[in-house]
Amino acid sequence: MSGNTFGHLFRVTTFGESHGVAIGCVIDGVPAGIRLDTAQIQHDLDRRRPGQSKVSTMRNESDSVEILSGVMAGVTTGTALAMLIRNSDQHSSDYENLSHCFRPGHADYGYFKKYGIRDYRGGGRSSGRETAMRVAAGAVAKQLLAFYGISLQAYSIRIGGVSAKNFDLSQVESNIVRSADPEVADAMIAAIRTAQSELDSVGGIIECRADGVPAGLGEVVFDKLDALIAHAMLSIGGIKGVEFGAGFAAADLRGKNNNDPITPGGFSSNNAGGILGGISTGQPIVFRVAMKPTSSIAQEQQTIDENGNAVTLCVHGRHDPCLVPRAVPVVEAMTALVLADMLLQNRASRL
Amino acid sequence: MSGNTFGHLFRVTTFGESHGVAIGCVIDGVPAGIRLDTAQIQHDLDRRRPGQSKVSTMRNESDSVEILSGVMAGVTTGTALAMLIRNSDQHSSDYENLSHCFRPGHADYGYFKKYGIRDYRGGGRSSGRETAMRVAAGAVAKQLLAFYGISLQAYSIRIGGVSAKNFDLSQVESNIVRSADPEVADAMIAAIRTAQSELDSVGGIIECRADGVPAGLGEVVFDKLDALIAHAMLSIGGIKGVEFGAGFAAADLRGKNNNDPITPGGFSSNNAGGILGGISTGQPIVFRVAMKPTSSIAQEQQTIDENGNAVTLCVHGRHDPCLVPRAVPVVEAMTALVLADMLLQNRASRL
Amino acid sequence: MSGNTFGHLFRVTTFGESHGVAIGCVIDGVPAGIRLDTAQIQHDLDRRRPGQSKVSTMRNESDSVEILSGVMAGVTTGTALAMLIRNSDQHSSDYENLSHCFRPGHADYGYFKKYGIRDYRGGGRSSGRETAMRVAAGAVAKQLLAFYGISLQAYSIRIGGVSAKNFDLSQVESNIVRSADPEVADAMIAAIRTAQSELDSVGGIIECRADGVPAGLGEVVFDKLDALIAHAMLSIGGIKGVEFGAGFAAADLRGKNNNDPITPGGFSSNNAGGILGGISTGQPIVFRVAMKPTSSIAQEQQTIDENGNAVTLCVHGRHDPCLVPRAVPVVEAMTALVLADMLLQNRASRL
Amino acid sequence: MSGNTFGHLFRVTTFGESHGVAIGCVIDGVPAGIRLDTAQIQHDLDRRRPGQSKVSTMRNESDSVEILSGVMAGVTTGTALAMLIRNSDQHSSDYENLSHCFRPGHADYGYFKKYGIRDYRGGGRSSGRETAMRVAAGAVAKQLLAFYGISLQAYSIRIGGVSAKNFDLSQVESNIVRSADPEVADAMIAAIRTAQSELDSVGGIIECRADGVPAGLGEVVFDKLDALIAHAMLSIGGIKGVEFGAGFAAADLRGKNNNDPITPGGFSSNNAGGILGGISTGQPIVFRVAMKPTSSIAQEQQTIDENGNAVTLCVHGRHDPCLVPRAVPVVEAMTALVLADMLLQNRASRL
Repeated sequence: MSGNTFGHLFRVTTFGESHGVAIGCVIDGVPAGIRLDTAQIQHDLDRRRPGQSKVSTMRNESDSVEILSGVMAGVTTGTALAMLIRNSDQHSSDYENLSHCFRPGHADYGYFKKYGIRDYRGGGRSSGRETAMRVAAGAVAKQLLAFYGISLQAYSIRIGGVSAKNFDLSQVESNIVRSADPEVADAMIAAIRTAQSELDSVGGIIECRADGVPAGLGEVVFDKLDALIAHAMLSIGGIKGVEFGAGFAAADLRGKNNNDPITPGGFSSNNAGGILGGISTGQPIVFRVAMKPTSSIAQEQQTIDENGNAVTLCVHGRHDPCLVPRAVPVVEAMTALVLADMLLQNRASRL
Repeated sequence: MSGNTFGHLFRVTTFGESHGVAIGCVIDGVPAGIRLDTAQIQHDLDRRRPGQSKVSTMRNESDSVEILSGVMAGVTTGTALAMLIRNSDQHSSDYENLSHCFRPGHADYGYFKKYGIRDYRGGGRSSGRETAMRVAAGAVAKQLLAFYGISLQAYSIRIGGVSAKNFDLSQVESNIVRSADPEVADAMIAAIRTAQSELDSVGGIIECRADGVPAGLGEVVFDKLDALIAHAMLSIGGIKGVEFGAGFAAADLRGKNNNDPITPGGFSSNNAGGILGGISTGQPIVFRVAMKPTSSIAQEQQTIDENGNAVTLCVHGRHDPCLVPRAVPVVEAMTALVLADMLLQNRASRL
Repeated sequence: MSGNTFGHLFRVTTFGESHGVAIGCVIDGVPAGIRLDTAQIQHDLDRRRPGQSKVSTMRNESDSVEILSGVMAGVTTGTALAMLIRNSDQHSSDYENLSHCFRPGHADYGYFKKYGIRDYRGGGRSSGRETAMRVAAGAVAKQLLAFYGISLQAYSIRIGGVSAKNFDLSQVESNIVRSADPEVADAMIAAIRTAQSELDSVGGIIECRADGVPAGLGEVVFDKLDALIAHAMLSIGGIKGVEFGAGFAAADLRGKNNNDPITPGGFSSNNAGGILGGISTGQPIVFRVAMKPTSSIAQEQQTIDENGNAVTLCVHGRHDPCLVPRAVPVVEAMTALVLADMLLQNRASRL
Repeated sequence: MSGNTFGHLFRVTTFGESHGVAIGCVIDGVPAGIRLDTAQIQHDLDRRRPGQSKVSTMRNESDSVEILSGVMAGVTTGTALAMLIRNSDQHSSDYENLSHCFRPGHADYGYFKKYGIRDYRGGGRSSGRETAMRVAAGAVAKQLLAFYGISLQAYSIRIGGVSAKNFDLSQVESNIVRSADPEVADAMIAAIRTAQSELDSVGGIIECRADGVPAGLGEVVFDKLDALIAHAMLSIGGIKGVEFGAGFAAADLRGKNNNDPITPGGFSSNNAGGILGGISTGQPIVFRVAMKPTSSIAQEQQTIDENGNAVTLCVHGRHDPCLVPRAVPVVEAMTALVLADMLLQNRASRL
């Protein structure tokens, strides 16, 4: 209930602070019989890890994951699957000067008001570091999905005001900003570096699509597939919006144009983003999320301390000038968690 | 798990089909001691009910609610509070011609694939009619919130391409489209009527704000306050996107401009929409949702029947040419459910 | 969370007070495609209803159930199935003299301390009347189980000190105390009538067995099948203990004698009660529950009022001198709910 | 859902196999502000650990626990608290000869039928080893409870047919069988050693009492306090029954004798075991559990292998001849988890 668990049948619980001993997760409900490819898990963690490129933070954590349980001779046993990553490259001293004031754009103020205590070192539990375990758990979910022919991919479609135009999804992982359009990758990188040089940061938009999702996933009324994905997306730090298919643009369409005609060969458009009435239709699931610019910036900002006094603060430390490229695998992971959960839950739909 | 329940400590379960015997809900977790104002519940139901104005469907259901349990001498007892609305003005025969084909833009296809059976009469469980019970439950939640000084209001800010510019929230309920800007209400109405006369429909955008929310609501990591609200919003039929504070526009801002400075007198802007790191900050919570145009339109559309044959279909019946005005109280209700749940859950945060 | 919901995938929420408007339930997660036999539901309700025999209360409620949703043309649709029973034969005035004091053996005191308010009329939510909806929901679960070849039966094995010796389960429903041994039924009846004539009450022991349960039901660690059944049993008012297989007697056995040998033809004994390590083994599931004597007795008892003053109280009204016979279908129903839930959940165990 | 999680607001998820890398747990919902005494956690683990006395297994695991998250400067932060114990003294080779056959009295058969795969090494996830993490989590719960004046203690009241008669709870931890009656401890020890010398094992009965529990804990209908405790108890491997207060003996009492009279000074007896209608009354909570004799015995037993062939099997390895003494802290821990959860949940009962 306190927020560290996601999902029902495929259920992930994560723990750990950015500057604590370790981060980890437990997945309850991994079906028995998956021949687990641990290299794939590490691969996704590497896609998320800091220090991976010149546009990411220079923190350098190897984020090598250890599987603690739930697997025997490489095959999942059906019991709780736990994974652990020890923290390593921490500079807690970077945060000493922040220990009594609230960083603008961060969870500091809310955590303090909520708990009366907070881990000021790198945000503690509210740090983006917790997303590593989402990625690890998502990588397990992806292997379950792959068994049933479901694949998914996320990619940047806008960074620092630069938009992808011609998508080539085969090239997403070949450019460091994970742009869907490799031709604008350099412009995106330039936007990030300019902001960084000005002690500032930029945001962007990520799109995610899932292919091979059978019709029928999602539950009625409150647990619609899009509702669960929206929940998953807004649970990622820095995400400020989500839209499915035509999204906000649908608000301006007429019904005739927005409805996707159905033909014997399938739907002839996909304004719905693959979900109607909360249930997957068999079309690709497509949605987008908006990510705000990194809150930690190395220029002066106004804030207050725990006693309510005005303070001028400058967030030093090693921060990503743009979180979008590293958030791409997190978006994939959270989508995978939702789909895995719905896939299992759908098994209970009929006699 | 099957989707008919929402929330944890303040937990609502709804039931009922549009053309069945009745719709209803059970709220588990209403704290004891609320002097329940049933007129307020009926008032919100009246704001949602069909037939309320010239821009809504002409179906005419009184939607009068009966409280079945959980209240004694007008005060909540802490036990399950159930409410019931008998269905009345149903024209099931309107749907006979649809009984074997899938309406474009509707849940029909997915439900059939999921369950192998579907209630074709008005969408059955997937009908917007189920939102009446969200409104009833939300009206109870609002009374809990009001006790703690929390109020909320939703309103239309865009319909059929017409945008609200100057907000006057005191006038929202004085115009039939619930426009935040009473001056553009007539233009919004005109956009709806034009579409209707062309056998078509329009969508729009609703904004919701909650005032008086204390800092500290929301849970860490997966149950962030914005994640839960996003879940709630996308669970409403026809909603295709949600954004908080600056929302999608934040993707184009620099960190310096997006961060809300904190001063001894409070935050000096609200790009965050009242939520940072998933926890409320004490500022007003502000978000927007995009609603697609009504899927049921009285002009010909291409679809298929249950055997996969091409069919041309025209959805007769009495449908809203624009769902936005009636969705406004539904958005409020779902927001109230989330806040009530988080308010109670927050009581467990500290010793 | 507040206790009105049971189960995960096959999940029942009940509501209603004994002297309120109605009692009802919502079952979320009934698989689509069950051809529902409503007469079977009513049959089980009749087995539980008051006024059914000379050893039960003389209250006479027909308890006729109305299905409100989730069924179309007699077949479950996969959506929430709601059922309602209007209350009828209430004598709330019987309770006026109890409105300010706490009946010994009842929930009155705890409810008052918990909620600061309580429905004194017949116990309100804590009344045994709520078990009617358990029976209704359990009757739906039984039909799901029957489809997979699982049947279950409960019966009295001890009442007022009289024990069943020779079991003939075909005769259980032929005697009004539902004794497993028809030969001692009269002695059990006599024990009840004697107690009643002395303004007192008696308790007893119910055994339940489930046949046809496949090996593999139940979940690891905390949701062992016996743990869930124990939860279900102790949630029934008046039940004070539960034991599986050899039960408390196992505490005195040696390992060699308690272990059930396994042979190519199956287990050669059933001290385990059909469950090992929390997982069903394919043997019959067998357990027993102890029911206390009815707390409401028509003789003077010492208690206190809401102000803490000593009061002498005599509980008039129409009470069962022994609850065991009417509890038999409740025990069956709760067992059916657990098994239905575990049956569906087990579908997620493997690839 | 898959059984590795217990509780709602104070919620524990455990993982790990007896012969895997490690065992661990995550507690979600520990309120912020508890000054955590880690020595107390280790103390309870030491009370449970193997090799602690001449009547326990000679396996010698130090079971030293590491706290991974959720605590800063010795105080809980409100975020997920994870704990880890690395496995050490494993003799997996002891189990090679068991790798293809099912040990009588163990979960082997059910797990194989459920998952199609099983970890034969020491029972894997079904091993009693998982209870170490229950004890660790329970020790945290105890510290929360202690803050509110709630204490609890479990003790052996019967082992191998020897019953405690005169209770002296101050001496429970001074004898190695944790007998409530120190005078019969030697007789209990003798019963265990005799069985052991005959390559056999014995069971027993544990009683637990909780003092200082305020009136009002527990939820209505399905989540009655006794239902949750029963769930908790039957989730412990080897427990075959549970009874509250007068328990099974209540089945033979008259209502007049079983009802606990209420006086201005409190209840004048405690047949209810401190719980009425599922809600605590403020009296001590008292219940007993029956534990079967250890299933692993070093004499020949009949069983089958995975192909269904008859096999004669002798379970070597280092097994406790009686699990009761080491189960005492497990019973306490599970009780503490229930009470902590109910304590937090009760905060939502009223305005």
